[in-house]
Amino acid sequence: MVIKRMQAIIADFASERDWDQFHTPKNLVMALTGEVGELSEIFQWLTPEQSAAITNDPQGFARVEEEIADVFIYLLRLADVLQVDLIAAAEAKVRVNEQRYPVELARGRTVKHSELR
Amino acid sequence: MVIKRMQAIIADFASERDWDQFHTPKNLVMALTGEVGELSEIFQWLTPEQSAAITNDPQGFARVEEEIADVFIYLLRLADVLQVDLIAAAEAKVRVNEQRYPVELARGRTVKHSELR
Amino acid sequence: MVIKRMQAIIADFASERDWDQFHTPKNLVMALTGEVGELSEIFQWLTPEQSAAITNDPQGFARVEEEIADVFIYLLRLADVLQVDLIAAAEAKVRVNEQRYPVELARGRTVKHSELR
Amino acid sequence: MVIKRMQAIIADFASERDWDQFHTPKNLVMALTGEVGELSEIFQWLTPEQSAAITNDPQGFARVEEEIADVFIYLLRLADVLQVDLIAAAEAKVRVNEQRYPVELARGRTVKHSELR
Repeated sequence: MVIKRMQAIIADFASERDWDQFHTPKNLVMALTGEVGELSEIFQWLTPEQSAAITNDPQGFARVEEEIADVFIYLLRLADVLQVDLIAAAEAKVRVNEQRYPVELARGRTVKHSELR
Repeated sequence: MVIKRMQAIIADFASERDWDQFHTPKNLVMALTGEVGELSEIFQWLTPEQSAAITNDPQGFARVEEEIADVFIYLLRLADVLQVDLIAAAEAKVRVNEQRYPVELARGRTVKHSELR
Repeated sequence: MVIKRMQAIIADFASERDWDQFHTPKNLVMALTGEVGELSEIFQWLTPEQSAAITNDPQGFARVEEEIADVFIYLLRLADVLQVDLIAAAEAKVRVNEQRYPVELARGRTVKHSELR
Repeated sequence: MVIKRMQAIIADFASERDWDQFHTPKNLVMALTGEVGELSEIFQWLTPEQSAAITNDPQGFARVEEEIADVFIYLLRLADVLQVDLIAAAEAKVRVNEQRYPVELARGRTVKHSELR
């Protein structure tokens, strides 16, 4: 499966460099934070419209792709180290969200589920 | 493919609730930040050893799985909205990292590539 | 001085609870991440205009004040543990920024200093 | 007062460059995220002991000081834009925390207040 294959590539990359010692879940969460921070820096001063139009700016879009890739790589690694099945976890969470945000109540609203009812 | 299928589920979830209007790239990056923050809260006071041992604590592990799922869901959504191919972007970045971090130079070291040579 | 006084209050709070053991710089950076994540969650779906108008919403504003306080408390604690003088560091950085962002070049632009010239 | 004076310096810096238009609360929270991300990158691979010993590494410490300054600058700016009194908000939150974390119950424990009783 494509996710397991990607995780194996990343695990080999780390192992070849003797980096497993650094890849505790705690450290990987901090690395994820760093990458999300870099993604934030790209978007921080943009209007909502400019943020959507970044797909039309080849240089800006290349940066976005690279930062999204960095976030994904650390997320894959974290899930691998913790043996979390990303797809199963996401499916389970979507089912929880379907309960928490019934269509009739949640339509067009951004209220948190705990304040929705 | 499993990633596109998951993105379609999340897109339908948003669309049914008329939430597309909120899902600008900028807003989704902030939502990602919020979820990474929740993941950080789980690990912030743990030692490296405790962070690795969280797999043995069913309650703690369930929280970790849920927060990882939330991060993944927003990352899938962000990539979908921006039309970024997550796997292709991760593969391209791993190739860049292979150039930046040659095995002989990077072994056992955490120095950033710009300071590695 | 008001900052040192506030840091002393927070240090006493931690010490009385035997929490110094948890307050390594690394852990405090993660705690800071968690609080910035909570602040992000308040603003993530707001338009720029709505984000500025949060001062008119007593309930929303109270949440913002509390999260800003949490960020400030962990920043004060981090600076105290590392013996960083917050005001001196901020003054030094403003001087650096004055060099990096000359008024004539930077006016009305959000380009990073490395791309400004 | 030292905080208001620093906020005035930062407000002048922004105003001279016509940057007020970018400094919505939402954008400033994203800028804060970016800076906390850079702080995380410094600490992400360090052990707890190494993170505490960074004060002995002049180069590493200078980076830490600069990133802490950046976080503080954006926090000061955010509080100024929202008219939040940082010291008053921190004092109020410490009082809340004294209620939430009674010394006898919280001693040596990192449990969240909602799970403490």
